[in-house]
Amino acid sequence: MAKEKKSPGLLEQLRVPSGPVDLSKYDTRATPGFTGTKDEGKVALESLGAEVSDWQERLYAEGLKDGHRSVLLVLQGMDTSGKGGVIRHGAGLMDPQGLKITSFKAPTPAEKRRGFLWRIRQALPGPGMIGIFDRSHYEDVLIARVRDLVAPPVWNRRYGQINDFESELAANGVMLLKCFLHISPEEQKLRLQARLDDSTKHWKYNPGDVDERKLWPAYTEAYEAALERCNSPEAPWLVIPSDRKWYRNWAVTTILLETLKTLDPQWPTADFDVATEKGRLAAT
Amino acid sequence: MAKEKKSPGLLEQLRVPSGPVDLSKYDTRATPGFTGTKDEGKVALESLGAEVSDWQERLYAEGLKDGHRSVLLVLQGMDTSGKGGVIRHGAGLMDPQGLKITSFKAPTPAEKRRGFLWRIRQALPGPGMIGIFDRSHYEDVLIARVRDLVAPPVWNRRYGQINDFESELAANGVMLLKCFLHISPEEQKLRLQARLDDSTKHWKYNPGDVDERKLWPAYTEAYEAALERCNSPEAPWLVIPSDRKWYRNWAVTTILLETLKTLDPQWPTADFDVATEKGRLAAT
Repeated sequence: MAKEKKSPGLLEQLRVPSGPVDLSKYDTRATPGFTGTKDEGKVALESLGAEVSDWQERLYAEGLKDGHRSVLLVLQGMDTSGKGGVIRHGAGLMDPQGLKITSFKAPTPAEKRRGFLWRIRQALPGPGMIGIFDRSHYEDVLIARVRDLVAPPVWNRRYGQINDFESELAANGVMLLKCFLHISPEEQKLRLQARLDDSTKHWKYNPGDVDERKLWPAYTEAYEAALERCNSPEAPWLVIPSDRKWYRNWAVTTILLETLKTLDPQWPTADFDVATEKGRLAAT
Repeated sequence: MAKEKKSPGLLEQLRVPSGPVDLSKYDTRATPGFTGTKDEGKVALESLGAEVSDWQERLYAEGLKDGHRSVLLVLQGMDTSGKGGVIRHGAGLMDPQGLKITSFKAPTPAEKRRGFLWRIRQALPGPGMIGIFDRSHYEDVLIARVRDLVAPPVWNRRYGQINDFESELAANGVMLLKCFLHISPEEQKLRLQARLDDSTKHWKYNPGDVDERKLWPAYTEAYEAALERCNSPEAPWLVIPSDRKWYRNWAVTTILLETLKTLDPQWPTADFDVATEKGRLAAT
């Protein structure tokens, strides 16, 4: 049933073409690859669960034996764009044993001393694992650039460093998927209001969110630069229209599923003699 | 609906009383606290999802603010007893962002040099998190004892060291739950046979499993010693009858839910002035 709902080429549809990026050209309420209602979208997401879990287990099994491949899903987006929601509702469909989730906050002094990629390397998924980054090394060319946390030559050099790093990952068997969860400023306002209106959501609100919001144009420019300068075939950027939460969750999960199918991990063959083992077991 | 199915005092029912432990007295096919069929058990498990996720989010929110509490679920049991299955089907109902899962294999030389509790400390859940150990420091009084990996005075001393360690954890806000997934040797044989009969399950089979199986009585004795000597009110052992997979998954998840409710984490109150923030947001 998952097959009916999922669009086979969603990754290709949402991939950012090479060249300059103008985010105003991307509709944040669009639902490319999906025709249906919100309720149908939620059902479609649930229906991916069995299939995506099956492929995840194949990748995991491959990794336990002689495999070296892994998947790394990088989630970026403005506050409230739904990075946590994608993990909860999309990644939550899979076996948590095969997930390695890292949420990157502001770097500590010790992390800063080691260079911006050090803590990223620490968090990479091992063979067979699906790594998920809630924010990532891209913050070092986003908030670091917008907030002048480092001098322009420093952040400017980082785009090349990121490209080198991501090439190295790809060469080491890490299948990278970078998703920009794209919301409109109007949608963000509604979501922040909702957090303020509901006392059980106050813990999700930070007064700094409004300060960041005021810098929306500068962040948009920084995202456009990152999406243009760090967009290689081996580490592509995708823009996920994210004003509709159900579409966002479905789309990222569908892309993950497509990626797993492309990797096509196989069940490892036995490294023991099956008949011998059956005999040994029977004798116990 | 979860409320109808769950037994409020399951933790108390499955808790090992203090004193000598005789595992032969525990029926591995029993379903204490649940009357119903296998299919009803699966439905009951699914119906716990919303409630357990809600409580998990409260604990997580508390931990993000000034909370220091966490939960640590230790899973032990013979091969095929279903440690991974509990994580997949039970923990899989929760938000993976709030889980910290660690699977302990044979310690590396570097780990051994640091003492058997070092790697365990590295893997402890942070505030607000639910840690899950697939095997644990108990292996150091199980396989280490049965296989003579260390001299008797060394493993013998470890029971006290474990008790001290677990007391320290409890004092630091870690709510410990230690579950022994109890299967019969006949059930293990069936499960190992099933792995040998299905080529997509060969990766789960290890010829060493049969060697371990031959030591069943010695392992039973070692488990009985651990359950007797390291069973404190602050770090209790529970025996989970595990010949029925659906019961095992339901029981561990129910116990986790009961524990979260006992902790009763509250949504953090705002550390900002809500009216002021509404005004600031409206002005953007």
